[in-house]
Amino acid sequence: MTEVSAPTSDASHAPVTVIGLGLMGHTLAGAFLTNGHPTTVWNRSPAKAEELVARGATLAASARDAVAASPLVIICVTDYQAARELLDPLADVLAGRVLVNLTSGTSEQARQTADWAAARATTYLDGVILAAPTDISTPAAALLYSGPQAAFDTHEPTLRSLGSGTTYLGADHGLSALYDMATLTVMWSVLNGFLHGAALLGTAGVDAATVTPFVSHGIATVTGWLSGMADQIDNGTYAAADATIDIHLASMTHLIEESRSLGVNAELPELAKTLADRAVAEGHGGDGYAAMIEQFRKPRS
Amino acid sequence: MTEVSAPTSDASHAPVTVIGLGLMGHTLAGAFLTNGHPTTVWNRSPAKAEELVARGATLAASARDAVAASPLVIICVTDYQAARELLDPLADVLAGRVLVNLTSGTSEQARQTADWAAARATTYLDGVILAAPTDISTPAAALLYSGPQAAFDTHEPTLRSLGSGTTYLGADHGLSALYDMATLTVMWSVLNGFLHGAALLGTAGVDAATVTPFVSHGIATVTGWLSGMADQIDNGTYAAADATIDIHLASMTHLIEESRSLGVNAELPELAKTLADRAVAEGHGGDGYAAMIEQFRKPRS
Ligand SMILES: NC(=O)c1ccc[n+]([C@@H]2O[C@H](COP(=O)([O-])OP(=O)(O)OC[C@H]3O[C@@H](n4cnc5c(N)ncnc54)[C@H](OP(=O)(O)O)[C@@H]3O)[C@@H](O)[C@H]2O)c1
Ligand SMILES: NC(=O)c1ccc[n+]([C@@H]2O[C@H](COP(=O)([O-])OP(=O)(O)OC[C@H]3O[C@@H](n4cnc5c(N)ncnc54)[C@H](OP(=O)(O)O)[C@@H]3O)[C@@H](O)[C@H]2O)c1
Repeated sequence: MTEVSAPTSDASHAPVTVIGLGLMGHTLAGAFLTNGHPTTVWNRSPAKAEELVARGATLAASARDAVAASPLVIICVTDYQAARELLDPLADVLAGRVLVNLTSGTSEQARQTADWAAARATTYLDGVILAAPTDISTPAAALLYSGPQAAFDTHEPTLRSLGSGTTYLGADHGLSALYDMATLTVMWSVLNGFLHGAALLGTAGVDAATVTPFVSHGIATVTGWLSGMADQIDNGTYAAADATIDIHLASMTHLIEESRSLGVNAELPELAKTLADRAVAEGHGGDGYAAMIEQFRKPRS
Repeated sequence: MTEVSAPTSDASHAPVTVIGLGLMGHTLAGAFLTNGHPTTVWNRSPAKAEELVARGATLAASARDAVAASPLVIICVTDYQAARELLDPLADVLAGRVLVNLTSGTSEQARQTADWAAARATTYLDGVILAAPTDISTPAAALLYSGPQAAFDTHEPTLRSLGSGTTYLGADHGLSALYDMATLTVMWSVLNGFLHGAALLGTAGVDAATVTPFVSHGIATVTGWLSGMADQIDNGTYAAADATIDIHLASMTHLIEESRSLGVNAELPELAKTLADRAVAEGHGGDGYAAMIEQFRKPRS
């Protein structure tokens, strides 16, 4: 016997509990097992634990027993309502532990759950998973956490079992949900822009596979503009480097006409034009596109 | 004297005419001069030719003389209407030449102008410039051409002076405008998604510069999905690899709630949800996101 440390006292093999063994929770628990963490699991429908138990997980008899089993408790269920219903009766066992919620939700839900946890003497980290289950434990998985830094630092070695893209964002519990939302809005934007472009070229018999490299090149080009725009947004000055919002508006009008005359959906450029029209009405026609941030900062006028 | 070929018989130094010396046309003419092409120029306001003449360009006394000066005539003015007004009286000198129109417009305008040119015995290439003037002659400039391939092949060495990203798309004169439109819709999609994300995180005091690397990483990830989606679109089968449209819809609802409760503009996810709702109503809730192409192929229902 050359090993001297017991598994539970070795930070890289700290015990962990996973509650919720759906597609994502199951994968998370599996990643902890693969990385040698003593892993306690619980799921409302116990059958989902079977494969994990065969791999060495401990199936708790109740959610209460699951929480009691480890100083670090991960929950990943459908939504915050399910998480809160499940945890509400367990205040006494939660006290003194670190609860990490990887359920998706809004920043408001995250902040409310932080208050709820604080009232129960539970240290709370809110997290989001920017990845599909198949990406877990790979470098493609980004896992973002917000809440008290000390709790993150203590458990980071364990949390890193879920992916090298494990990142601490800050003390505000709402941050992880907000980064999730920013990623989502960009995702649908890219997908819908691509689909609109593919539909336009489809009218000329060009297949989507042919369009993709052009569109991908265009996306990469525009991505390269973002940090310059970010600087303008942060400084609140929007000098036009080349195209002004007025020039963008003229092209948006072309794109709307083109879409309509081809019988293709025009709602994407129509919305872009609606927002740009508002910017012009507020005197930003001669500014660069970064000035459009002001339209996104407020509800529809 | 070791040089034997006169400049005009050397394909790489063929003469060219540029009509329209605005921001873009001026840069195009300058690129031809830099690359050793005998360059004739004309602009409605002659003062814009001065700097080019100092660099060796020949200023034609009229648009007619400009057309007559070269077998290859490039026009780059504000819009197709301006181009047609300018060229309409010049049918006799245009006959037998190759006209390349780098003015931005719709595919319908490009196709109509091709018919107009055909009726005047003029070989017509329609082109678009996916670049700012400062990118011309650099690898960042994509210049796309459509129309008769033989005309493109003949003049490709000259056209390459404007950028190494000089590409022939096909015989349909509408193709270049359609690729331009696809690039534009993707551009505004990326920019607006970024601005929405920056506005969301701005509510928590996170500056746009901090958000940019996360958003850029997300954009690159999603760009990686496009070729798989393109294959599904081209096959007309939309099996969900992981998230279904139903799952996307649930997240869109979260994003709308999040935006509204933070006082941030929610119109981008509202439009995404409107389109996804229609896809679900048509039975695509269990399909992958590629099935959304059907919503983009038709006008608002
Ligand atoms: N899958 C992904 O690609 C992905 C990616 C990023 C984030 N996420 C997020 O991860 C979370 C879980 O997703 P998933 O894909 O694992 O979902 P899932 O496969 O539908 O699993 C849902 C889990 O929640 C449990 N649950 C639901 N309501 C409950 C309740 N009232 N009491 C107790 N348990 C309840 C389910 O238990 P039963 O088994 O008993 O029904 C199941 O374990 C979601 O917030 C999702 O947005 C998922
Ligand atoms: N600038 C860019 O970043 C960029 C990028 C890609 C594509 N483009 C496209 O390139 C084209 C030209 O853009 P630009 O930036 O050069 O525009 P610009 O600086 O506004 O120049 C417009 C040009 O068109 C001429 N013109 C307008 N109406 C005319 C008429 N009725 N008769 C004769 N000449 C007329 C102007 O002549 P005067 O000088 O006499 O007014 C001027 O030469 C546009 O279609 C634009 O969409 C531009």
